Amino acid sequence: MEVKKKARLAKEASQSLAILSSSQKDTALELMAQALEKHIPDLIAENKLDVDMADKNGRSRALIDRLILNEERIKAMAEGLRVIKALPDPVGEIISQWKRPKGLEIGQKRVPLGVVAIIYESRPNVTADAIGLCIKTGNAIVLRGSSEAIHSNKAIVKIMTEAAYSVGIPVGSIQLIEDTRRESVQELVKLNGLIDVVIPRGGAGLIKAVVENATVPIIETGVGNCHVYVDGRCDLDMALDIVVNAKVQRPGVCNAAETLLIDRTIAPELLPRIVEELKNNKVEIRGCDETIKLIPDAKAACLEDWFEEYLDYILAVRIVDGVEEAIEHINIYGTGHSEAIVTSDYFNAEKFLNQVDAAAVYVNASTRFTDGYEFGFGAELGISTQKLHARGPMGLKELTTIKYIVRGQGQIRE
Amino acid sequence: MEVKKKARLAKEASQSLAILSSSQKDTALELMAQALEKHIPDLIAENKLDVDMADKNGRSRALIDRLILNEERIKAMAEGLRVIKALPDPVGEIISQWKRPKGLEIGQKRVPLGVVAIIYESRPNVTADAIGLCIKTGNAIVLRGSSEAIHSNKAIVKIMTEAAYSVGIPVGSIQLIEDTRRESVQELVKLNGLIDVVIPRGGAGLIKAVVENATVPIIETGVGNCHVYVDGRCDLDMALDIVVNAKVQRPGVCNAAETLLIDRTIAPELLPRIVEELKNNKVEIRGCDETIKLIPDAKAACLEDWFEEYLDYILAVRIVDGVEEAIEHINIYGTGHSEAIVTSDYFNAEKFLNQVDAAAVYVNASTRFTDGYEFGFGAELGISTQKLHARGPMGLKELTTIKYIVRGQGQIRE
Repeated sequence: MEVKKKARLAKEASQSLAILSSSQKDTALELMAQALEKHIPDLIAENKLDVDMADKNGRSRALIDRLILNEERIKAMAEGLRVIKALPDPVGEIISQWKRPKGLEIGQKRVPLGVVAIIYESRPNVTADAIGLCIKTGNAIVLRGSSEAIHSNKAIVKIMTEAAYSVGIPVGSIQLIEDTRRESVQELVKLNGLIDVVIPRGGAGLIKAVVENATVPIIETGVGNCHVYVDGRCDLDMALDIVVNAKVQRPGVCNAAETLLIDRTIAPELLPRIVEELKNNKVEIRGCDETIKLIPDAKAACLEDWFEEYLDYILAVRIVDGVEEAIEHINIYGTGHSEAIVTSDYFNAEKFLNQVDAAAVYVNASTRFTDGYEFGFGAELGISTQKLHARGPMGLKELTTIKYIVRGQGQIRE
Repeated sequence: MEVKKKARLAKEASQSLAILSSSQKDTALELMAQALEKHIPDLIAENKLDVDMADKNGRSRALIDRLILNEERIKAMAEGLRVIKALPDPVGEIISQWKRPKGLEIGQKRVPLGVVAIIYESRPNVTADAIGLCIKTGNAIVLRGSSEAIHSNKAIVKIMTEAAYSVGIPVGSIQLIEDTRRESVQELVKLNGLIDVVIPRGGAGLIKAVVENATVPIIETGVGNCHVYVDGRCDLDMALDIVVNAKVQRPGVCNAAETLLIDRTIAPELLPRIVEELKNNKVEIRGCDETIKLIPDAKAACLEDWFEEYLDYILAVRIVDGVEEAIEHINIYGTGHSEAIVTSDYFNAEKFLNQVDAAAVYVNASTRFTDGYEFGFGAELGISTQKLHARGPMGLKELTTIKYIVRGQGQIRE
């Protein structure tokens, strides 16, 4: 009942929200930012209820860290809304317009998607981000966060909706599903006609559950089994830097490298250097048979290791026969996220760029750059690993669709 | 077994197909066209098996008409391939490229989707069209036609694949699922990792079955409950022409009008004229209570009529209070396909364009123009009624995705 009712309210509000001016939406973003800053003590108090409960339930340190709101984090949420405010509004852009022989003028216009549902896990800052991104792009939003963050989410949504509705954002545009049972997700992802797109943000389990149950179109985000391939001809120091950066700069994120592929001709010289540096960074190595010959104290990798997104200080290592075998490995085991080659060979670079099937393919740079901010989009809603609608880092445009606007003078079809 | 095996073969072939040059693909299109022309008698003979079976099973005249292949239709299929050949190849286009502060050069490149599955009904020309569109865009294709056209489809696929593979299209790129049981669709739409997109082409029942079962991303096509709204201030002759054209020029297609909405102020003067002309065209009228007062011999419309896509010589008619009520009606009952207003009022025209939520919105023109050829795209894969990835008539670009190509000089993330 709650899910469908709230989705319907969002749908109704979406029609007026879609045609608000940019300045109305930007005013609301500024006011929402101010409201968060004004209510820092209240937000911290509500958040403490969630944190205490997580503590009591013995949840992991990592989860609790993601859950905690403090003054700095709340200020960062407000600042995030101002960053979104400062970006150009994509809605209303005429992408192209042309005239047909009979005089019909056809324009392709950028419009909001309508109602966007976000299903996510325990980070409460996602709540503020997602509301900001949706309001900026004229979309109503239905939020379904986890039970662990429910007090925080309720407080954030209450503060932000009051601010938004006070300056003309249509009442109903922002909805939080408070039913955090599994069933509420199941219901939400089948509301065709009310929800235009579902974006799951979280781990592989959450995404799988959404993909398997959804009848509403979805944008899959996140799972990254990323590779760095070190080619036979390359700058050795550059290869070392890129592999280490891709693995250890922030191992818990989706664009971190999980497997190193290295050409047989360079492995005896380079692999021990790379492994030494990785071990200095406490990275565990799981190698193929040939890797073990060069690095006798490495663990042996099994088939599962090639598929695994560790998100941890672990790196699988495989010695390969050149760029073709590297590409083949990546296209079999990869998740289509971010893939890099380190090479000084022109043809191998081009082959890798053309034949690796992934959202972002790099030559001589770390996979860690796959990110809306690093790409220059100013904001990010996640990184799509699917091919339909959005692929790679998603900016504001990915929360829009197009509509054909046709102006005639009485034309009929012969 | 057959479905997964063939999908896997398509997936394997898709990697080499994706990087073929435009001239290789165009040569194949020309050869496929010639092969169809060369085998006209064989195709007609195989088609006769399907037509005889449909006859024997007492299938409708309309179905048999869609099923029949004759010399003219086969030549039109070949000509369709040459039209596709003549279009520019969208694959490989760099849509944009920019440089980031650290020197990374990021390019957004258009690439094939990979493997496209088409699930369709009894028209065998869809088989040739879909193969042509996929080969042009570097996509492998898995076809799942209906049992009624199986002999025709097998013959078309055999002739076209032999021609294509003889000039370097990778063997495996074109697959026909010969198992026409319902189960083969169920299996196909769940092959994530092998199939990149499923496009159902057919009636509402087929599309619903695919939407409800698919875990692979889909592009919904086709269902069109389209409206013409005649505003209080308008050119009466133009309104008459547009309503009649939208209803009767070809009633069996998705962009034909199903409901006429007419402003109360103009109805007494204009509606009898429109209805008379429609009756001359054998159109049955189903009207709201107020319509019945003006047109006493019209049938009374019930709630279902506002939802119905007749695809027939039937028109629902409702008298409304101005443009707002028309927009409200359309956004409740419409399917987001094609919607038209006939008006000479500037503000009502703009309001209709902005507030109607549909793929194509018209001012003073017939809804019948929603079509890839009429829009100038040169080819059409169907008309998307969803908002993700593609909306409205789909041309070649809608069979592609993008990939970020990032060229660095050793950049790592700080």
